[in-house]
Amino acid sequence: MKRSLIVLLSLVGFVAALPAMAQFRKAEEAIEYRQSAFTLIGTHFGRVAAMAQGKVPFDAKLAAENAAILNTLSSLPFSAFGEDTDKGKPNRAKAEIWQEMPKFRAAADKMIGEVAKLDIAAKTGNLEQIKSAVGAVGQSCKACHDNFRAERK
Amino acid sequence: MKRSLIVLLSLVGFVAALPAMAQFRKAEEAIEYRQSAFTLIGTHFGRVAAMAQGKVPFDAKLAAENAAILNTLSSLPFSAFGEDTDKGKPNRAKAEIWQEMPKFRAAADKMIGEVAKLDIAAKTGNLEQIKSAVGAVGQSCKACHDNFRAERK
Repeated sequence: MKRSLIVLLSLVGFVAALPAMAQFRKAEEAIEYRQSAFTLIGTHFGRVAAMAQGKVPFDAKLAAENAAILNTLSSLPFSAFGEDTDKGKPNRAKAEIWQEMPKFRAAADKMIGEVAKLDIAAKTGNLEQIKSAVGAVGQSCKACHDNFRAERK
Repeated sequence: MKRSLIVLLSLVGFVAALPAMAQFRKAEEAIEYRQSAFTLIGTHFGRVAAMAQGKVPFDAKLAAENAAILNTLSSLPFSAFGEDTDKGKPNRAKAEIWQEMPKFRAAADKMIGEVAKLDIAAKTGNLEQIKSAVGAVGQSCKACHDNFRAERK
């Protein structure tokens, strides 16, 4: 029973990844795409986080703009982790991504959800709400990196 | 008179670029950011263009989704061409970008405007309108690349 469930969940992950895979002609392209998306995500989250952490002055308009862009970007990388995209270009994706696709997908969805909440918080312009939402997004990034991203060599 | 105008226009370009520059701590980061944004722009435009060119079956929902993402992405790279971001990481930005900033800015705005029209066209789901808008976006990409992007070495 448990084994069947695991197989079923793996299949769900595999099937869910299929259309994404079909969007890229080569693994190299998928890897470059997801790395690019993460670069933009890091930049725009970083700008809101810097305000939340008091490293730069709080600017409600800028925070809302960056959170809105981040909300569009957050789901993009996960269309580019199709089967056979582990190699083709230097990258830090761990084998666990494909071995534990449902867990990876859940971690991605957690981040996407927290980013959506940050977008809502940023639209209110309330710094305390933004701080709280930034913390939750940061935790969701870290949780996924801890499990699925290799250290820099 | 003409010389003054050129100096004035250069200053406008320089001042306009300043806030953008301040968003990145290092030239390397700005270059990586704009390259990443162009990678995503190319991918999402490519998906709509492939449908417009009949290379893949037309899917109105997918076309609209990709055009909407593209519309968020289109302005992003141009925040990352601040002064002193010509070097720091291999890149294909020509010196003309900084020498002729107002012309570069106009070329960028042309593309951003055509992408906005493509987004509107894609929302209608009318393939003929999408084809026409894709053609205009493609021309605006090419015009800027011809003038401001170096050939691959």
